Amino acid sequence: MFTNKRSLTIEWGDCDPAGIVFYPRYFAFFDASTAHLFKAAGLKKSDILKKYNAIGFPMVDTRAKFKIPSSYGDEVDIETSIVDIRNSSFDIIHRLYKQGKLAIECTETRVWVGKDDNDDEKLIAKKIPDEVVALLT
Amino acid sequence: MFTNKRSLTIEWGDCDPAGIVFYPRYFAFFDASTAHLFKAAGLKKSDILKKYNAIGFPMVDTRAKFKIPSSYGDEVDIETSIVDIRNSSFDIIHRLYKQGKLAIECTETRVWVGKDDNDDEKLIAKKIPDEVVALLT
Amino acid sequence: MFTNKRSLTIEWGDCDPAGIVFYPRYFAFFDASTAHLFKAAGLKKSDILKKYNAIGFPMVDTRAKFKIPSSYGDEVDIETSIVDIRNSSFDIIHRLYKQGKLAIECTETRVWVGKDDNDDEKLIAKKIPDEVVALLT
Amino acid sequence: MFTNKRSLTIEWGDCDPAGIVFYPRYFAFFDASTAHLFKAAGLKKSDILKKYNAIGFPMVDTRAKFKIPSSYGDEVDIETSIVDIRNSSFDIIHRLYKQGKLAIECTETRVWVGKDDNDDEKLIAKKIPDEVVALLT
Repeated sequence: MFTNKRSLTIEWGDCDPAGIVFYPRYFAFFDASTAHLFKAAGLKKSDILKKYNAIGFPMVDTRAKFKIPSSYGDEVDIETSIVDIRNSSFDIIHRLYKQGKLAIECTETRVWVGKDDNDDEKLIAKKIPDEVVALLT
Repeated sequence: MFTNKRSLTIEWGDCDPAGIVFYPRYFAFFDASTAHLFKAAGLKKSDILKKYNAIGFPMVDTRAKFKIPSSYGDEVDIETSIVDIRNSSFDIIHRLYKQGKLAIECTETRVWVGKDDNDDEKLIAKKIPDEVVALLT
Repeated sequence: MFTNKRSLTIEWGDCDPAGIVFYPRYFAFFDASTAHLFKAAGLKKSDILKKYNAIGFPMVDTRAKFKIPSSYGDEVDIETSIVDIRNSSFDIIHRLYKQGKLAIECTETRVWVGKDDNDDEKLIAKKIPDEVVALLT
Repeated sequence: MFTNKRSLTIEWGDCDPAGIVFYPRYFAFFDASTAHLFKAAGLKKSDILKKYNAIGFPMVDTRAKFKIPSSYGDEVDIETSIVDIRNSSFDIIHRLYKQGKLAIECTETRVWVGKDDNDDEKLIAKKIPDEVVALLT
């Protein structure tokens, strides 16, 4: 189970009038965390999109449970792990910690997507390249 | 089950380099849709925050399943319903339709939050006012 | 001088802990307003990007002056005009009104960009098509 | 002239369908850079808002000139300097470099804002505390 950790600071613009992080911003953090996980595995997203003619790995299903709110200036740690890889999809879990306490747990399922060979305008699920699977496991 | 519908246009800045909506933007749409549901029930969020000394109704748990991607220029319809109200929390479901087809289904559980009477800095779950419950059911 | 007007509601997630709109959100509004101006002229951005093999019209220079803050729930009106069109660039002005009062004035200069004929990876300024110029003036 | 530098990575969600940064995101970067400048001067924004009963330092006037676009995965450096401090307002300049080349130059004028002593709902410009001025010069 490949894992990556990163830290970030909650910025003023991440927060709402209640003074806590506007929750869609967490999903932006987690999306970047998945990209950073790939990068840590030696798979820079921009490179793999070119190399494998992929378009990206869009979200199919994501769920987040929010336990502790964070505010402007907080330093948080995000631990991201890949928990399963299938033929054309994979599962990720993100755990966001604030001062060592689990603040958010987020799971996501993404699908590997490329252009249809017969229709350049159409995006379809594609088999995850073996090389990518090997690096992530 | 109180329901509200609204339509919106996908803007250029909502989309990512794959040309589809960057999924955290959907959560911003859904957050606004919950506020619009309240407004449609006669409960303008800015008014109720003042009237009931609430801080907001932060997200506790949300899950979205993405079935059809949307792109710049698409017109989408969001149907938002309140499905359950408990003492201090409530459940919402959002269904986003693209050309009449269900594109995303998102559930959310939120909690009614105000300042602790003994500690102005602390946010705690509060009982949802009866008047609010009445208007939403 | 082609002009378009649209209205929008300030959402919770547009605002920061001071309770006013986080100013980068205004630029997202204005970016969309420029696209809406084109659409009102009969030029749907997604269509023209395809038709003229353009990539977009990225920002070269923008300046905004903020006179009156807006908050969650405010209804604002944005009036967008094209003020000059040159060979490969054009100037836009946005005026955002709150309750009829000028709250923000924003100018922008954008350039019409497409792929270089000799290098698919390179973006270069291109002549704005005559048909586009005609519709905008 | 107090100056602070920081680096950041362009994320997937910062970019638009043209594959370059959606320019309102740069303003979010710059807003955070101003806060980081204050922090580097020993003035953590969350602390000073409490200590001096300020609400923030909202934007009055900002202008950005975009010379070189950035894309997903790019590492950029932002150099932020305070160039002038007046009674209740101050000027900042941000320079964003990509691979050592000046990519964006952004100036901003902000005003120090607090609650009106006679009307808690009203925000007014206030004198910047001497201690703050001293630390920034």
